Amino acid sequence: MAEEAAVRAQADTVRRLKQDKADPDEIAKEVAKLLDMKAQLGADEGKQKFVLKTPKGTRDFGPKEMAIRERAFKAIISCFKRHGAEVIDTPVFELKETLTGKYGEDSKLIYDLKDQGGELLSLRYDLTVPFARYLAMNKITNIKRYHIAKVYRRDNPAMTRGRYREFYQCDFDIAGQFDPMIPDAECLKIVHEILSDLQLGDFVIKVNDRRILDGMFAVCGVPDSKFRTICSSVDKLDKVPWEEVRSEMVGEKGLSPEAADRIGEYVQLHGGLELIERLLQDPKLSQNKLAKEGLGDVKLLFEYLTLFGITGKISFDLSLARGLDYYTGVIFEAVLLQQEKEHVEEPVSVGSVAGGGRYDGLVGMFDPKGRKVPCVGVSIGIERIFSILEQRLEASEEKIRTTETQVLVASAQKKLLEERLKLISELWDAGIKAEMLYKKNPKLLNQLQYCEDTGIPLVAIVGEQELKDGVVKLRIVATREEVNVRRESLVEEIRIRTNQC
Amino acid sequence: MAEEAAVRAQADTVRRLKQDKADPDEIAKEVAKLLDMKAQLGADEGKQKFVLKTPKGTRDFGPKEMAIRERAFKAIISCFKRHGAEVIDTPVFELKETLTGKYGEDSKLIYDLKDQGGELLSLRYDLTVPFARYLAMNKITNIKRYHIAKVYRRDNPAMTRGRYREFYQCDFDIAGQFDPMIPDAECLKIVHEILSDLQLGDFVIKVNDRRILDGMFAVCGVPDSKFRTICSSVDKLDKVPWEEVRSEMVGEKGLSPEAADRIGEYVQLHGGLELIERLLQDPKLSQNKLAKEGLGDVKLLFEYLTLFGITGKISFDLSLARGLDYYTGVIFEAVLLQQEKEHVEEPVSVGSVAGGGRYDGLVGMFDPKGRKVPCVGVSIGIERIFSILEQRLEASEEKIRTTETQVLVASAQKKLLEERLKLISELWDAGIKAEMLYKKNPKLLNQLQYCEDTGIPLVAIVGEQELKDGVVKLRIVATREEVNVRRESLVEEIRIRTNQC
Repeated sequence: MAEEAAVRAQADTVRRLKQDKADPDEIAKEVAKLLDMKAQLGADEGKQKFVLKTPKGTRDFGPKEMAIRERAFKAIISCFKRHGAEVIDTPVFELKETLTGKYGEDSKLIYDLKDQGGELLSLRYDLTVPFARYLAMNKITNIKRYHIAKVYRRDNPAMTRGRYREFYQCDFDIAGQFDPMIPDAECLKIVHEILSDLQLGDFVIKVNDRRILDGMFAVCGVPDSKFRTICSSVDKLDKVPWEEVRSEMVGEKGLSPEAADRIGEYVQLHGGLELIERLLQDPKLSQNKLAKEGLGDVKLLFEYLTLFGITGKISFDLSLARGLDYYTGVIFEAVLLQQEKEHVEEPVSVGSVAGGGRYDGLVGMFDPKGRKVPCVGVSIGIERIFSILEQRLEASEEKIRTTETQVLVASAQKKLLEERLKLISELWDAGIKAEMLYKKNPKLLNQLQYCEDTGIPLVAIVGEQELKDGVVKLRIVATREEVNVRRESLVEEIRIRTNQC
Repeated sequence: MAEEAAVRAQADTVRRLKQDKADPDEIAKEVAKLLDMKAQLGADEGKQKFVLKTPKGTRDFGPKEMAIRERAFKAIISCFKRHGAEVIDTPVFELKETLTGKYGEDSKLIYDLKDQGGELLSLRYDLTVPFARYLAMNKITNIKRYHIAKVYRRDNPAMTRGRYREFYQCDFDIAGQFDPMIPDAECLKIVHEILSDLQLGDFVIKVNDRRILDGMFAVCGVPDSKFRTICSSVDKLDKVPWEEVRSEMVGEKGLSPEAADRIGEYVQLHGGLELIERLLQDPKLSQNKLAKEGLGDVKLLFEYLTLFGITGKISFDLSLARGLDYYTGVIFEAVLLQQEKEHVEEPVSVGSVAGGGRYDGLVGMFDPKGRKVPCVGVSIGIERIFSILEQRLEASEEKIRTTETQVLVASAQKKLLEERLKLISELWDAGIKAEMLYKKNPKLLNQLQYCEDTGIPLVAIVGEQELKDGVVKLRIVATREEVNVRRESLVEEIRIRTNQC
């Protein structure tokens, strides 16, 4: 075959390039071509030459996982709607330049599309930058919206811990010029409501402010040019001890040991209103304009959170930094304190399940005249929550249903396919959720077994005698009770018995 | 600045390459680099250098579009659930080789991801191939599932007619070895239910069978090697007249005029059971094994559709071909007959809004041992439906709400922010959908106006007197009626008045 010859020729090309120690990029390109040709050949011959898998860091959601996913989404969406949010959606990819310069060091994790002619595109990395682009493009200065969609990061996956390359974010944001800290407080209330509602166990929401961090760096003697990089060292404090962070600051990042030690004193502090009051009196911090502003706002925030009755789960934590470049004010992160299992030896921090903050400058980066739209928002990291819910369900005895079917239309004798089709069509048209087996003459036992397996609560059995009498035999699967129901009352009877009107 | 110098140098490079008439690919690469550098520079300076748009062929969904979209999805999902379907989800991209060799000529429309090291990936082109990959990978031989997700095609967009590069498909498929035509009939019933439910106006569902087409080509004297290409000519008959299709067959594709004329006699036929009966007696077709099988099955299908009472909207149409390679049996396509507007001069066919068919070989292409899993399914083309629903809503007077907020928490005097925060927190915790303005001292008039604008039906007003009396003033926006409600009864009263329990 001509194709096979072409594949052999291509294989030779690859071999030759390798022997010649050619440019690795060129080799990779030719190898890709070869694989492509082989795959094509395999497909043409009807033979299987594929690796049967999903791409690295991604997964399928089967019916059971979807049932869990929809439960979690339901809780989250109803919270967002309770707070009056509208919903929007944006494309899965953006112009590459829309994402450029928004994510600092993380930009290398962005998925680009191949240049196939036309615009250069990238998969979205989060929902915040597309939201800001949407606001600027449509000149919207005032909106409260949620957006639930998949985002993409070429990160090192750790799937058992819920870290994927394709994953959902559930974002709620408030854009607009408002009185300070009222929208910010609502975002924290939302995180509190969702984590409580999902019953994920104990949690704490850490709160800090970028202005406090910047002010702190200034009074500790960090040079302006090192703010960002020192900030990203501080961000590691939830995973590594202070000593390690300190040696990174001094050793790798060239900070003076004195400055590092001064930072160390601050970032190990956490508490509530009393800590904020104390820092407002701190001789050094209180002299810094940014820090003072930040502390003032965080104090106001805590007053509002007190009115919401949720300060018990909130910790003002000077070590919270958050990686993204675009935050300008309050930042926060919710952490589950330990896993569900009571008998786990040491309380495992399963890490962050929600995070967010204020980003007052991002929309202005897209606006032709640089007009700012202040924004604050929260993103729920749903994948970790899925993992926890999945593990919990596995541990429990609960059998999760993956369909909502109310009744199976069955027959007790042969040659009743037509009658089953007629009956099920009536039920569908009346809005009843109904199934039947796709067999001409299924055995009654198999039909009943199907109900047991899938959790269908009722069976509507047609038989010759029932047809003559104008009735249908309705069987309640759980109790094995059987009652004859007049055909014209069947829909009503099914509704009552399954309580779905 | 060093960056600006680099941009200028890069601009020179591009200019030089263009002068030298270099390889266009190389020029494009350097231009992309230049744009990238410029964008980076713009971002660094905080200036706006972006084109503010979504990628070609894509769009944002704002709150209003989302409200319409969710209405349509609700109708479709409730139909799929009524028929007992489970739901699954798959990643937005697949290994490139998973998609290779499945779409015939359309493969050129697949979006590839850039090779950034690791696997070669492509965005999914439909939901059917990922479904088949999922079945083979998990060795599932029996499932009824739906999947609603976006797919990607580098097609020429025609957005006013609802053709996008990123668009939703709503797929329902039945996989498994069953008695003939029972699942196929259910797929057609589903299309009928959804199009009726969405009230999109008159429609017809065209039905044919790949085996009938192949048999017909054989008896008309089309050589085996030309089946595919002649099939794709026939597929154009819904857009261009027979004469044009004929000249393409003869002129471009080298078919003999006699064979073309024989095809012409068949493909202009459409009808119901009586046509099927007539073709089963057709001296030529009835001699062809494939055609006979296909006709026999289509006859059985029509018998089942008669039991479902939907043959009035079904047309057996020998010109229906459908482009995709993987169909093996029954194929169908639903077409809206004219747009909503009564006064349109000529009935405009807005084209296909649903399509599908039987594909018994696709899963086997993924299975290491080639084991087949017969499948039949339908895909609802929701974008055209969105367009119609949007146009209809625009024409109507209906004001669509984009939130579900039941009550606005308001105040009549100043200095009541704390009281509003306390009350709204109580309402949220009781599950009431509530909003407040994010201002310390909003004017009552502005608060009432907000309700008018957004359709919030109730206002809970706190004032100093009400606080003393332990009541809240509840205002019904539509009637301007105001009643004092005891604070402890407020939640119940709001529920009753908004009928959401």
